[in-house]
Amino acid sequence: MVRVAIKRDVLEMENRQAEANRRYFSRRGVVALNLIGSPGCGKTSLIEAAHRRLPRSFRLMVIEGDLATDKDARRLKKLKIPAVQINTGQGCHLTPGMVAAAARKLPLERADLLIIENIGNLVCPVNFDLGEAAKVGVLSVAEGDDKPEKYPLLFRAAEVLLLNKVDLLAVSDFRLRAFRAAVRRLNPGLRVIEVSCRTGEGTGEWAEWIRIRQKAEVGSKK
Amino acid sequence: MVRVAIKRDVLEMENRQAEANRRYFSRRGVVALNLIGSPGCGKTSLIEAAHRRLPRSFRLMVIEGDLATDKDARRLKKLKIPAVQINTGQGCHLTPGMVAAAARKLPLERADLLIIENIGNLVCPVNFDLGEAAKVGVLSVAEGDDKPEKYPLLFRAAEVLLLNKVDLLAVSDFRLRAFRAAVRRLNPGLRVIEVSCRTGEGTGEWAEWIRIRQKAEVGSKK
Repeated sequence: MVRVAIKRDVLEMENRQAEANRRYFSRRGVVALNLIGSPGCGKTSLIEAAHRRLPRSFRLMVIEGDLATDKDARRLKKLKIPAVQINTGQGCHLTPGMVAAAARKLPLERADLLIIENIGNLVCPVNFDLGEAAKVGVLSVAEGDDKPEKYPLLFRAAEVLLLNKVDLLAVSDFRLRAFRAAVRRLNPGLRVIEVSCRTGEGTGEWAEWIRIRQKAEVGSKK
Repeated sequence: MVRVAIKRDVLEMENRQAEANRRYFSRRGVVALNLIGSPGCGKTSLIEAAHRRLPRSFRLMVIEGDLATDKDARRLKKLKIPAVQINTGQGCHLTPGMVAAAARKLPLERADLLIIENIGNLVCPVNFDLGEAAKVGVLSVAEGDDKPEKYPLLFRAAEVLLLNKVDLLAVSDFRLRAFRAAVRRLNPGLRVIEVSCRTGEGTGEWAEWIRIRQKAEVGSKK
């Protein structure tokens, strides 16, 4: 009983911090996306691809989450994308408090969009609101078409799902039709964008989704 | 402070259950392996491959973990492998209590080896002892060669690491040498076996590792 009460208390505190983050982003006119998917599904590559396809005037900043190393933040800084790395040590998801601290290291008042790349994990990050406008789910073809049914949380919570590494469809037994049907059963409104960061396929559609989503969010605040 | 004390208390309880599982397995002469890796890295396929390559006299049973569905247990039952499915709902790792309950549904006194396929997750499952003899790590080539450094926990805790989907090396930019060097830095004693469940490459070596490991464990108890 004590455990349950304390868990609820901690979650309430987290949610209050998420709301504070949301206000912090909103006051600076920046829209935040929470990018969630397994290790190696291509989250950082999708940020790089968005940067390439978005107009130059569109200012993107990034908070990177990993257990260890600043490899991903360094990748983005090479492209001149302002980025801050969070290292969680053993932590399996980002918390709103971690995001609040990292956000203060970025000049967000000059940004249009903040992408928060969560820890590579298809389960835990889904349960924590970070103050984002939307959750963006990522699944790679290499993970298999049975993942929506086996790991439904993300597919229910995301506003858009990027099916990445579609260049591997030719060398895998991923059944696109079965995958799409499973996604529809879990979340009929979920938009699925097929992408390959390797060939560039679908990266324009991904950038376009970002642009429209960002505009809708900023517009609704005016 | 209260939170920390309670967390420690829960962890102690979990560890006691893990020790009880270990005794339960030992009394039945069965050796348990805890199979850990991301969603879609090929854990179930590696169990199927081991079954194909192990001698017919070697009796394998399986506990399957997923958030939802009994797809994996059904896959194994088709091959006549006795299997029990655990569904964790939102749970990101198996607990020793879940394993204890599932183990009682299997005739383990007739088994040589129990493989516990954990929830697809490179982070959380590493922190929970289930009573296994060894942790077996799985990484797929599709996840990228930077994963040992970014997610070091599993690479430190595992006794053997299966690098799966090596048939994708030709169509990926996975740098095998950099990967091996990173693994060595984290855990110099970690045996790495390169496997492709698609082509069968390395599956004999994986089955051989199981046979020798099982024999060593049972031998040490006599």
